Amino acid sequence: MRALVYHGPGTMAWEEVAKPKLLADTDAIVRVDAVTICGTDLHILKGDVPAVTDGRILGHEAVGTVEEIGTSVRNVQVGDKVLVSCITACGSCRFCREGRYGQCLGGGGWILGHTIDGTQAEYVRVPFADTSTYPAPAGVADEDLLMLADILPTGYEVGVLNGNFRPGDVVAVVGAGPIGLSAIMGARLFSPSHIVAIDKADLRLDAAKMFGADVTVNNDREDPMEVIAALTGGLGADVAIEAVGVPATFELATQLIRPGGRVANIGVHGEPATLHLETLWIKDVTITTGLVDTSSTPTLLKLAIGHQVEPSRFVTHHFTLDQFVEAYDVFGRAADTGALKVVLTRS
Amino acid sequence: MRALVYHGPGTMAWEEVAKPKLLADTDAIVRVDAVTICGTDLHILKGDVPAVTDGRILGHEAVGTVEEIGTSVRNVQVGDKVLVSCITACGSCRFCREGRYGQCLGGGGWILGHTIDGTQAEYVRVPFADTSTYPAPAGVADEDLLMLADILPTGYEVGVLNGNFRPGDVVAVVGAGPIGLSAIMGARLFSPSHIVAIDKADLRLDAAKMFGADVTVNNDREDPMEVIAALTGGLGADVAIEAVGVPATFELATQLIRPGGRVANIGVHGEPATLHLETLWIKDVTITTGLVDTSSTPTLLKLAIGHQVEPSRFVTHHFTLDQFVEAYDVFGRAADTGALKVVLTRS
Amino acid sequence: MRALVYHGPGTMAWEEVAKPKLLADTDAIVRVDAVTICGTDLHILKGDVPAVTDGRILGHEAVGTVEEIGTSVRNVQVGDKVLVSCITACGSCRFCREGRYGQCLGGGGWILGHTIDGTQAEYVRVPFADTSTYPAPAGVADEDLLMLADILPTGYEVGVLNGNFRPGDVVAVVGAGPIGLSAIMGARLFSPSHIVAIDKADLRLDAAKMFGADVTVNNDREDPMEVIAALTGGLGADVAIEAVGVPATFELATQLIRPGGRVANIGVHGEPATLHLETLWIKDVTITTGLVDTSSTPTLLKLAIGHQVEPSRFVTHHFTLDQFVEAYDVFGRAADTGALKVVLTRS
Amino acid sequence: MRALVYHGPGTMAWEEVAKPKLLADTDAIVRVDAVTICGTDLHILKGDVPAVTDGRILGHEAVGTVEEIGTSVRNVQVGDKVLVSCITACGSCRFCREGRYGQCLGGGGWILGHTIDGTQAEYVRVPFADTSTYPAPAGVADEDLLMLADILPTGYEVGVLNGNFRPGDVVAVVGAGPIGLSAIMGARLFSPSHIVAIDKADLRLDAAKMFGADVTVNNDREDPMEVIAALTGGLGADVAIEAVGVPATFELATQLIRPGGRVANIGVHGEPATLHLETLWIKDVTITTGLVDTSSTPTLLKLAIGHQVEPSRFVTHHFTLDQFVEAYDVFGRAADTGALKVVLTRS
Repeated sequence: MRALVYHGPGTMAWEEVAKPKLLADTDAIVRVDAVTICGTDLHILKGDVPAVTDGRILGHEAVGTVEEIGTSVRNVQVGDKVLVSCITACGSCRFCREGRYGQCLGGGGWILGHTIDGTQAEYVRVPFADTSTYPAPAGVADEDLLMLADILPTGYEVGVLNGNFRPGDVVAVVGAGPIGLSAIMGARLFSPSHIVAIDKADLRLDAAKMFGADVTVNNDREDPMEVIAALTGGLGADVAIEAVGVPATFELATQLIRPGGRVANIGVHGEPATLHLETLWIKDVTITTGLVDTSSTPTLLKLAIGHQVEPSRFVTHHFTLDQFVEAYDVFGRAADTGALKVVLTRS
Repeated sequence: MRALVYHGPGTMAWEEVAKPKLLADTDAIVRVDAVTICGTDLHILKGDVPAVTDGRILGHEAVGTVEEIGTSVRNVQVGDKVLVSCITACGSCRFCREGRYGQCLGGGGWILGHTIDGTQAEYVRVPFADTSTYPAPAGVADEDLLMLADILPTGYEVGVLNGNFRPGDVVAVVGAGPIGLSAIMGARLFSPSHIVAIDKADLRLDAAKMFGADVTVNNDREDPMEVIAALTGGLGADVAIEAVGVPATFELATQLIRPGGRVANIGVHGEPATLHLETLWIKDVTITTGLVDTSSTPTLLKLAIGHQVEPSRFVTHHFTLDQFVEAYDVFGRAADTGALKVVLTRS
Repeated sequence: MRALVYHGPGTMAWEEVAKPKLLADTDAIVRVDAVTICGTDLHILKGDVPAVTDGRILGHEAVGTVEEIGTSVRNVQVGDKVLVSCITACGSCRFCREGRYGQCLGGGGWILGHTIDGTQAEYVRVPFADTSTYPAPAGVADEDLLMLADILPTGYEVGVLNGNFRPGDVVAVVGAGPIGLSAIMGARLFSPSHIVAIDKADLRLDAAKMFGADVTVNNDREDPMEVIAALTGGLGADVAIEAVGVPATFELATQLIRPGGRVANIGVHGEPATLHLETLWIKDVTITTGLVDTSSTPTLLKLAIGHQVEPSRFVTHHFTLDQFVEAYDVFGRAADTGALKVVLTRS
Repeated sequence: MRALVYHGPGTMAWEEVAKPKLLADTDAIVRVDAVTICGTDLHILKGDVPAVTDGRILGHEAVGTVEEIGTSVRNVQVGDKVLVSCITACGSCRFCREGRYGQCLGGGGWILGHTIDGTQAEYVRVPFADTSTYPAPAGVADEDLLMLADILPTGYEVGVLNGNFRPGDVVAVVGAGPIGLSAIMGARLFSPSHIVAIDKADLRLDAAKMFGADVTVNNDREDPMEVIAALTGGLGADVAIEAVGVPATFELATQLIRPGGRVANIGVHGEPATLHLETLWIKDVTITTGLVDTSSTPTLLKLAIGHQVEPSRFVTHHFTLDQFVEAYDVFGRAADTGALKVVLTRS
C-alpha cells in the first residue's frame, strides 16, 4: 500500500510500504476512506516531536472501513464504516475507567502517527478497536464524521467542558485558528451571552464570526481587556479559552477573566508561560489544561446528526490520497490558502 | 480606647485612639475579647501592602461582644458573643449571593485592618454585621472560635475544598507553616490515604505530624518527587496544596501531581511563578487560587463543637492586649519561638 | 388605592384598600406598572391554599417603580424601575446564603400574595428590597421583564438546572402548559438533541412546537414510551421534566427515563404519587423537587437582553389593572382562550 | 467440583457439578478461596428472583486464584489472587464507559449467581475478567478483601456517594443491617457531625454504634423525627440513607430530611412506596436509587490497606466450603445468630 512516511525534519513522502497486519487480538485493520492533517502533524514535520522517528507513517484522524479484526474484537465487524479516533483507549486502566482516555496507561493515548504508524495511509492498524473506533451513524458524511476524530472533541472537551460555563456567560476565545473555531462552535451549545474571539488575523476573525462569535477583536488594533470590560461591567470574562499555545496568549487569557473565572487551555505549548500569581492568587481563578480524551464522541455524533454542530464548516479543501504532499502544502500555508481542515479521500 | 496602630513600614504602636462609632445602620461595634495576628499583618508591617496607610488599626480576626448595633442589624444583638470574620460581606452583590464573600463588590471583602480600622484594638466597628459576624455557639472557647476567623476557613476552603479530592487520595501539602497545618487538619476530614507534608524546617514537619500528616519530607534532604512516586505507583499526587507563596513551592506543587491532578494554591504571592505549560498542557491539570470567603464558617463551627477539627492546636502563645508589641515580636520570630498562632485577650 | 382582594373560596374583588406603608427599614414601596396572574392564584381562589385568608391582596409577580425605600435599602433608589420577584429573600439566613431563597428562614420565601399582601394592586410593599428586587435593564420591555418574576426562573431552575443534562441529551417534558413551555424554552439553552413534549391537548402541543419542542406526543393517542424508546435506542430519556402536578404525570415521568436518568419535578402536587421502587431501585435514577429560588434572575436577564430567551412569547392577553376580574376569567379558562400569561398594566 | 446449586424455591444443595470452562477469550476461571452469602441470595432462595432458575450455582462475591485465562485477558495472570466483583463489566458499552458498570449493556451487570453460574463453588468462570476482577494488594487478608466484592461498595456508592454530603452534616441511616452498617462505615470517611442510626432491633443498633454511629434510635420506642430535629435546629437531616427496602423505611427517610436534603435509597424494594409529593414538591429534595457499580473498588482497596475502612468488622462467622448449607442457615437466621457476613473458605 502507499502511505505518508516521515523521514526526519522537513522530509516526508507518499510512498510504498507494507500493508499493516493484526498484531494483537484486539486490533482492527481499517481501510482509510477519508483522512485529514492536524496542526500537530506540521509540528512533527518540523522536528518538534522527537518521539516520532524516521519511517513513521503520520496521521491520527480517519474515517474508514473495517477490513479485518482480531479474535476478541466485539464492537465492530468487518465491513463496518468507522471513525478512527485520535486517541486510542485500552479501556481497562484506571484512566480509561474514568473516561480519561488521553492519559491511558494500558498502551493507548495518542499513539497513532506518533509512536505507532498512523492513518495517513491506505490502511491502518487500530489497537484496542473496541474502545478506539466508533461505528458511523447513518446520515453523516465521511468528511463530517472525520471532524469528530480530533478537532471537534478537542475544542469541546478541553475548551468548552473544562471552561464549565453557564448560559448567559461571557466567553473569550483567544486564537481563531481551527481549534479556536472548534471551541466557538462547541461553546454555542451552552448559550453564552457573548463569545468574544480574539486574534491578530482579520481572515480568522471573519471565520470566527461565521462559526458563531458575537464579537471579534483584532488585538493588533484593539485592546481585548477594554472590549471584555465593556461587556461585563468591568469584571472580566467568565471563561477564557486559550487556543494558540504560546506564552503571550496564555497570559492574555489569565488577564481577561473575572474574579472566580476560568481559563481553559487548549494550546499545545513548547515553552513555559509566566503565571502572574502576584495578582491571581487573590482572584479565585481556575486554570485547566488537557489532552483530548474523545470521551465526548457519542455526544458529538448526536449533535452532528441533528446539525447542532456543523463539522462541514471546517472543510475548506479536498484532495485524493495520492495528493498528500500537495495537501500538506496547502494546509501548511493556511494564512495564504485560508485552509481550516483539508480532507483526503480514496480516489 | 487603645489599639495597635500602623505608622508606616516597620513602625507600629499600642496607643490611645478614638473609640469607633456606628457609621451605617448595618454596622456593629464589637468589644474585642480575643484577637490574633496573621502572617499578612507581618507583610503589612514590612510595607508590602501599600493600601494600608499610616494611622490604620491593624487586624482582621477577633472574637468579641456586641456593644452597639445599627438600626437595621437583625441577626446579632447587643451582648452577643460573636466571631468577627476576616471577610466582610455586603450580602447582596453578585459575589456575596454566590457565597464568594472574599470578592464582595458591595463594600466588603478583606477590609478590616486593610482599608478600614481593624480588630487589634479594644473595640472594632464591623460593617454589614448581619453577614460578617457569627454568633458564638455554646461550648466553644473564645480562643478556639478565634481560629475560625481566618486560618481554619483559609486552609479548608482554598486548600481542601478547592483541592476537591476523594477518600483514598494522596494529598501533598507544600509548606507546613500555620496555613499548611490548617490545610492538613482540613484534609483529614475527607480521609485521604496519605497526607504528605513537605517543608525545609524539621520543627514544622514535627508539627505537621501532630496535625495529621502521614508522611513528612524535608526537601532540603529528600526529593519529594520520589516520595510521592513511591506512594502512587509513579503517577504523582492526586492533589498538591501550595501553602507558602513563593515561586519555587508553587512550581514544586505543579510537578508533584499526577495526570488529572489538582494544585490548590493558598499562598499569598508577591511575584510571578513559571508555569511549565510545555509539560503541563497535556497533563489534564487543574490549578486554583483563592482568597478565603469564610463561607465555610457554619460548617467549621459544627466540626469544632464535635472536636472534628481542633482549633486549640494552633494556639501556642497567650498575651493580654497591652502586650501587643511583644506578641508581634514572638509571632514574627516563629522559627525561633515555635509560634503558630498567638492569642491576645482583654486583661 | 385599588387592589385585587381575596374574600374566601371563589370570591375576589378589585376594590379600594389602604395604600401600603413601609414597615421595616429594609422595605420598599413599589408602584405596580405591570402584573400577571399565576396558576397558583387560581388554586388560592379555589380555596386550596389555606394560608391565604380573607382580605389578602393576591399576586406575587410584578414590574414597578420604586416609590419609597426604608432607611437601610441600598441597592434600589426611588424612581428605579424594578422587577419584583415572586420569592422574597432575607439575604442572610443559611438558605439565602446558599442561594436557596425559596427556603428562606429569615422571613422570606414565597410570601407575597400568600402570607402578606401581594402585587395585584396599584402599590405593593416589598420586604428585603435589596435582595428581593432587581433593577430593570435598559432595553427590556416591562411585560418581558415580568415573565422573569416567576415563570421563567421556575422552568429554568426547577426543571432545566435540576434536570442537569448535557448537549445531545433527550429531554421529555410532561405537560405543555405555561410551566412546561418555560422548561422547553430553558432546555434549549443546553442544546439537547430532542425535546419531547407530552400533553393531551393538541393546542398546547402546538405551543410546545413554537417554544422549541422537537417532537410532540399526544398521550391520549400515542404511547410516549414508544416515542422515547425510538429516539433512544430503547434506553429511555436522559431527563424527564414533570410540569403538571398530578400523580399520573409524575409516574409517567419516572417511567420515561433511562437507567441513570433524572426526573425533575416542577409540578405543584396536592396528593401523593406512587413511586415504583420495585423497578426503580436498580435503575440509578435521581428525582428532584423544588420551589423556585429566582437565583437565576441575573442570568435570565442577560439571556432576555440577548433574545436567547424570549419572554414575550408567553404573553397572550393584555388588560389594564381595573380589568382584573376579566383577566382572571380569561386566564382561568385557558383551554378555551388559549391564554398562557396575561399582562395587566396601569391605564 | 462441588457447588451450591439452586433447585427452585426453598431448595439448594452443595453438590457435584461440572467444573466451568472458558467460553470466551475474555473469560477467566478462578479457584474460589473465600466466598460469602448476600441477603440477595436469601431472596433468590425464597423464589423472589425469577430470573434465577433450577440448576443455577448461586453467589456473586469471591476472592480466588486465577486458574486459567482467555487469550485476550491482559490484566490478570494465572496464579494471581483476585477479587471477583459482584458486578461484571464489559468495559466498552456506554454505561461501562461512564463507570456505571451495574447497568452494563454489553453482557455484564449483575450476572454471577443470577443469569450465569456464580461464586458459591470451588471454581467460577468470570466473564470480562480484565474489567471484572481486581488483583489483590499485598497485606489485605482474603476475608477482608471479600467484603469489597459487594457490601462495602454498595454502602459507599449507593448510600454515601449518592448522599453527597459534606463534613459537618447530619446523616440519618434508616436500617442497621449489614448494608446500613456499610453505609455508616463509609459515611465516616466524609466526617459528618452526626450519624444517626435508626432500627427496631437493639442488637443492630449496638452494632451501629460499633461501626461509627454517633446516635442510635430504636423507632419502636423513640420518634426519629424528634431526635433529628433536636440535632438540626428543627430543620431535618442533610441526608437520609435508606438501607432496608420496604415502603415504611423509604417513607421515613423522605420525612427525615431538611429542605434541600437528599435521600439515598440502597434498599432492594419488592413493592411501590408512597411519595408524599404534596409536601415534598416544595422542599427541594433529591432522591436517588442505584445498583452498585463497584467503580469505587480501587478507592476502597486503598482505604482498606490504610485501615480507614475495616472490612473485618463485618465477618462474624467462618465456615469451610463444604459447610455451605449450615452457613446459609446461620446467615438466614441473623436476628438470632447475630450474623453480619459469613465467610466460607477452602478447607
